[in-house]
Amino acid sequence: MADNKDRFVNQIADINSDYTKWYTDVCLKSELCDYGPVKGTMIFRPYGYAIWELIQKAADERFKAHGVKNAYFPMLIPQSFLMREAEHVEGFAPEVATVTHVGDTELGEKLVLRPTSETIIGNMYSKWIDSYRDLPLKLNQWANVVRWEKTTRPFLRTSEFLWQEGHTAFASAEEANNDALEMLDVYKDIANNVLALPVLCGRKSEKEKFAGAVATYGMEAMMKDGKSLQSGTTHYLGENFARAFDIKFLDKDGTHKYVYQASWGISTRLIGAIIMAHGDERGLCLPPEVAPVQAVIIPIGATKNPAVGSKAKEIKVQLEKAGARVELDERDQSPGFKFNHWELRGVPVRIELGGRDLEAGVVTVCRRDEQGKFTMPIDGCAKEVKKLLKKIAKNMFEKAKSFTESHIVAVENDDELRAALDGGNFADAYWCGDVECENAIKTDHAATTRVMHTDQSHVEEHKCVRCGKKAKHRIYFARAY
Amino acid sequence: MADNKDRFVNQIADINSDYTKWYTDVCLKSELCDYGPVKGTMIFRPYGYAIWELIQKAADERFKAHGVKNAYFPMLIPQSFLMREAEHVEGFAPEVATVTHVGDTELGEKLVLRPTSETIIGNMYSKWIDSYRDLPLKLNQWANVVRWEKTTRPFLRTSEFLWQEGHTAFASAEEANNDALEMLDVYKDIANNVLALPVLCGRKSEKEKFAGAVATYGMEAMMKDGKSLQSGTTHYLGENFARAFDIKFLDKDGTHKYVYQASWGISTRLIGAIIMAHGDERGLCLPPEVAPVQAVIIPIGATKNPAVGSKAKEIKVQLEKAGARVELDERDQSPGFKFNHWELRGVPVRIELGGRDLEAGVVTVCRRDEQGKFTMPIDGCAKEVKKLLKKIAKNMFEKAKSFTESHIVAVENDDELRAALDGGNFADAYWCGDVECENAIKTDHAATTRVMHTDQSHVEEHKCVRCGKKAKHRIYFARAY
Repeated sequence: MADNKDRFVNQIADINSDYTKWYTDVCLKSELCDYGPVKGTMIFRPYGYAIWELIQKAADERFKAHGVKNAYFPMLIPQSFLMREAEHVEGFAPEVATVTHVGDTELGEKLVLRPTSETIIGNMYSKWIDSYRDLPLKLNQWANVVRWEKTTRPFLRTSEFLWQEGHTAFASAEEANNDALEMLDVYKDIANNVLALPVLCGRKSEKEKFAGAVATYGMEAMMKDGKSLQSGTTHYLGENFARAFDIKFLDKDGTHKYVYQASWGISTRLIGAIIMAHGDERGLCLPPEVAPVQAVIIPIGATKNPAVGSKAKEIKVQLEKAGARVELDERDQSPGFKFNHWELRGVPVRIELGGRDLEAGVVTVCRRDEQGKFTMPIDGCAKEVKKLLKKIAKNMFEKAKSFTESHIVAVENDDELRAALDGGNFADAYWCGDVECENAIKTDHAATTRVMHTDQSHVEEHKCVRCGKKAKHRIYFARAY
Repeated sequence: MADNKDRFVNQIADINSDYTKWYTDVCLKSELCDYGPVKGTMIFRPYGYAIWELIQKAADERFKAHGVKNAYFPMLIPQSFLMREAEHVEGFAPEVATVTHVGDTELGEKLVLRPTSETIIGNMYSKWIDSYRDLPLKLNQWANVVRWEKTTRPFLRTSEFLWQEGHTAFASAEEANNDALEMLDVYKDIANNVLALPVLCGRKSEKEKFAGAVATYGMEAMMKDGKSLQSGTTHYLGENFARAFDIKFLDKDGTHKYVYQASWGISTRLIGAIIMAHGDERGLCLPPEVAPVQAVIIPIGATKNPAVGSKAKEIKVQLEKAGARVELDERDQSPGFKFNHWELRGVPVRIELGGRDLEAGVVTVCRRDEQGKFTMPIDGCAKEVKKLLKKIAKNMFEKAKSFTESHIVAVENDDELRAALDGGNFADAYWCGDVECENAIKTDHAATTRVMHTDQSHVEEHKCVRCGKKAKHRIYFARAY
């Protein structure tokens, strides 16, 4: 193992001693992304964008199965739209980029680059929705959004990012709130079964909710440094935007009513979650479902032994036929160089084929998620590799789940809270619900409330972790990205 | 036929008497799109966006087969980048939207919303390309772009539109120019085989080329009013952007050289082409490959006869299993209303099932591209409908092809040119190559050069349609969108 580690010394920082640099190194050196010319912007390089395409595909299928249709709304929103919902403008105005000129001509009204689209979509919904027959209306868009952040990091926080935003309208409050909860389940399904990410799901505090929502629900994933990454949110918007944009429908009872709305989004941030929840000292470790390359074949000694090269090609074809995403690395480089290259890039399965393997009718297989090598008969190896990919996905999820579970510490007072956080854990705590305690904890421990437990029974028997008053919520506190 | 036409009188303008209003009516009333709140912007409604998704899928597969990888570059480009290529900035500056502020803070450098991405991608290519081993580099992005146009029309010309832009770099001029030509072939394949659109392909004049290109190649499609719609362009950029952004590589011979580049794009404009090339007095007529709904099943009298309703459901399942995109219209509306609804939306196949049909074991089938009805046995109808969709695609292409061919008129002088154009034709002409003649024709006849013929043999034996001097090019003149 020392050998193995040494190979990476010059490539990426040590994950245990400098997690921040490790993250940046992995992002850049595995060619997931690069910095853009404008501070805070990034480029999705092909390897990083391919992961996003696979996430999109998995999510889009699930949305459509949920009765959602895709649409596309303009990126430029009249500044006045943002003003109509008081909390919304307060939340977003400071980070909104404004277009004032076209060529040398000043625009009549300032336009903002969408930070999110509740307002412009609300404006259209008021036009499209007339009667209860037009409801529910469930639209989604895949789009770029702009939020000018002071501190930026690739995938986690950039001035422009890619996401999907779903915007739904219903005749009743219950349906709209249910939609927010159901979409949270869809996101959890994507996290667990596509990204191999265990997540904690629940309602957010008032302080942490979306600007303009009645309630925000979130899913939080634990990174390997014990910090939390908000990985998706859904919002129950009540009548807030309906009142701001006059979205009314004629109900069956003959009266005009405001619609109830929900909105929900996941973004390219999920790529950051994958990197930080699964990565290790060797670099990326990609969940098979979203790995642009699921298996790489490395022929060894093919220049001296042409049979190795041609068998490697055959194996590639077999694997492709079985539906695997596969690369054959025939570059004129040493096996060691190639091992590093693909390990850093987190390819789930490496298949080595040397002269001895060929004689024995086997390939040597190496899993990215575990140590050690084993052989597998060449005949039928495509089927076996497909099985192995499933096994790897399961193992990655289980590993991340045990890690998360073993890093959640129940705390009863402020000292325990600090100790838990300093130890790289989430704190499982009771809280009085007052923003003063939330603020004090943020100031003292740099931690925030993440999500409430689904099970809030017997909460009133407990005391607030900060002030000792009667608890209102069981909630996770964590340091977060 | 009179009956049929009458049904649409109140819905959409007459295609023969007011083509412009017909177009807008079709766009809005078939719910392809709507106007955005900011002048010149539009919303892609689900039906319109679904067409775009199908175009994207067909194009993306072809690009990937061509060795192109997807990436994503920032939308905000430093204004100074645009300045580096003199022709480029001259071409785009007047229609570029500029971001000056974030919140209340003025930005250090003005940023523009990408009108196209040669500059920002050039900037990254200079960083990524070191040696001949890094070439060719072929990236594409699916993105929104902003070009502030004075006169706008849905799909054809809007402030923001969706497109793909491919950007490639090569070691030699020949490879780069070939890439531009090969991608033009890919676009032609998409036009012919996905959109059922015949196109004229060839080189553009100097006046009509892309700002910053050495040569632009275009594909032009004829609309039903005899005007041309530029439906895709590819550009050979030479070293222009390589010099502006210092994109050099170390060649095999040990010297540093500039790369040669190409770029190419198709956009949501193609939806406009589909509408105007295939539409008729009844509205949209969608090519099966990009029809979000390929077949609609309309049960007739299902309330009185429940067997009709359940058989209709069975047929739907059969069709879906066969891989068709199908809708079952069970709404509480008259058959006539439903026929209008789906005809306006251009659904290629309508399947009616009434009590008598059911007794006879048949469905009544209606093609959108031709008049008349016929019956088909229910057993095996899924397979027959799939065949029919292929037949419809072919028929639509052939019809558009004959229309185009019969509306190209060879002209030898200015009078003939005007007559051809006024008659709703493309003019097949010889031209001296001087921009003065091009400008004069534009001023006098509102027509522009579109693309040169592939075959330029014996050109010098002919005379310029305008000035009578010796011809340099055989080229199409047309009025254009």
